[in-house]
Amino acid sequence: LDIPTPAWARIGKMEDLNDAVARTGLPAVLKTRRDGYDGKGQQVVRELGEAREASERLLAACPAGLVCESLVDFVAERSAIAARGVGGEVRVYPLVTNVHEGGILRRSTVDPHQGSRSEREAQRAVRALLDELEYVGVLALEMFELASGELLANEFAPRVHNSGHWTIEGAVTSQFENHLRAIVGWPLGETEATGRVTMTNLIGQAPPTPELLADARAHVHLYGKSPAPGRKIGHVTHVA
Amino acid sequence: LDIPTPAWARIGKMEDLNDAVARTGLPAVLKTRRDGYDGKGQQVVRELGEAREASERLLAACPAGLVCESLVDFVAERSAIAARGVGGEVRVYPLVTNVHEGGILRRSTVDPHQGSRSEREAQRAVRALLDELEYVGVLALEMFELASGELLANEFAPRVHNSGHWTIEGAVTSQFENHLRAIVGWPLGETEATGRVTMTNLIGQAPPTPELLADARAHVHLYGKSPAPGRKIGHVTHVA
Repeated sequence: LDIPTPAWARIGKMEDLNDAVARTGLPAVLKTRRDGYDGKGQQVVRELGEAREASERLLAACPAGLVCESLVDFVAERSAIAARGVGGEVRVYPLVTNVHEGGILRRSTVDPHQGSRSEREAQRAVRALLDELEYVGVLALEMFELASGELLANEFAPRVHNSGHWTIEGAVTSQFENHLRAIVGWPLGETEATGRVTMTNLIGQAPPTPELLADARAHVHLYGKSPAPGRKIGHVTHVA
Repeated sequence: LDIPTPAWARIGKMEDLNDAVARTGLPAVLKTRRDGYDGKGQQVVRELGEAREASERLLAACPAGLVCESLVDFVAERSAIAARGVGGEVRVYPLVTNVHEGGILRRSTVDPHQGSRSEREAQRAVRALLDELEYVGVLALEMFELASGELLANEFAPRVHNSGHWTIEGAVTSQFENHLRAIVGWPLGETEATGRVTMTNLIGQAPPTPELLADARAHVHLYGKSPAPGRKIGHVTHVA
C-alpha cells in the first residue's frame, strides 16, 4: 500500500520509548491508540524528558499503547473523503482543506475547481486505502501537505467525518447519504461540490440562532449538546 | 388586492347554478370548497346538463358549497412560492413551471435565470397576497399563463407545497426550513435556485430504488406510503 506517512513507531511499554524517538526524531506527537479525538489522547513532545512524562501519563490512560509520530512542518491540512460500495465502486469528494485550533477542527473549505496535483494524489491514496481494506461505506483520510506539495497521511477515520459535514448542502450527495447507499448496496451518488463551500464548527458555545441566520445563505446545524469548553456543539455551512 | 383570476362564481345550492354559468361561461370547472386535492372534488363541465349533474354530485359531497370557474386556455401552469416572516419580511422563490396529468402534479421545473415579465408579475402577486393576509409562513400561489403572457391566479395553498419540494436540494434554503424560520420569528433564508431543477412525482408506484439511484445526481424521496393508483408516494429531484 503506497501511501507516504510521517515517520512513526509503536510504544507498547516505557522500554520502547528510546527506540521510538530514535526512529521519529523530536519534536514528535504521542497519541493513544484508542479513544483519541479532538486533541484528546495526544501530546506534542519536544525533548526526551517531556516524552518520558507524556508516555507514562498516556500509557496509564491507554493500556492498548501509543503511537509516536514525527511532528510534520506542514503548510496545509487536507482530508480526502470517499465512499466505496459493496461492489467496489468508489467515489471521492473534492479535497478538503482543514484548519485546526487547539487540536480541534475549526474550519473546512472546499474549492470545487481545484484539480491540483495534491488533489489527484490524495484521491489516489484514499482509493488505494479503501481497496486495500475492502472497505464498504464512507472513510476520511487526513493528510499533511508539505511545502513541496508532498502529502503525508496522518490518520484515517473509518466513518463519516466532521471534515465532510460540508457535503450536506455543498455536494450533490452528502457523505451520510453515500454511506447509507454504500452499506445497503445501492449505487453511489455524485460527489462533486456545488460551489465554494466553507464549514465552520461551533465550539464551546454558539451565538444566538437568529444571529447565525442573519446570513441568509448560512446553513445552521445545532446538535442539541450542552455548551462546554472545546466541545463541538454545531456547525455552519456556507455555499458561495 | 390586484391579482387577476379567471371568471368565477359561488354555487351554494342548485338554484345558483344558472347565474354562475352565466358569469363564467362554458366550459367551466366545478370545485368543492373543502377537501379538494389532486383533482379530487373537481370536474370540468362542457354543457349545462353536465354542469347540473356534477353540481348535484359535488354539493352532496361538500355541504360547504362549490366554486364555478371559467376553464382557461393556458400555455403553462406556474406557481409562485414565497415565505413571509413575523416582521413582514418576504422572500420569493424563482417561478416554478408545473405539468399536471389527470389533475395530479407530475413535474415541476425551475430555471434559475429567468427574470421574465411573467416571473416579476407572479412575484408581485404573491407578495401582495402575503401582505394582504398578513400571512406568516410559506404559501404557494398557482397561476395559469396565457399565450399573451398574462397570469391568472387559480388557487393558493397556505402551506408548503408539492411544487416547492424541489427547494430541498435545488434552492439555497428549502421551503420547509423557511416555513420554520418564518413562524419562529427568525430571519428568512436565501431563496435562489442552485441550478436548473426538475422535480418529478412518483405516482401510483415507484420503480425499484436502485434503479432510481442509478442516476448519480438523483435525490430520491420515498414517503413510506403504500402504492395506490393516483397516489403520490415519493418524488425525485435533479439539479443540473
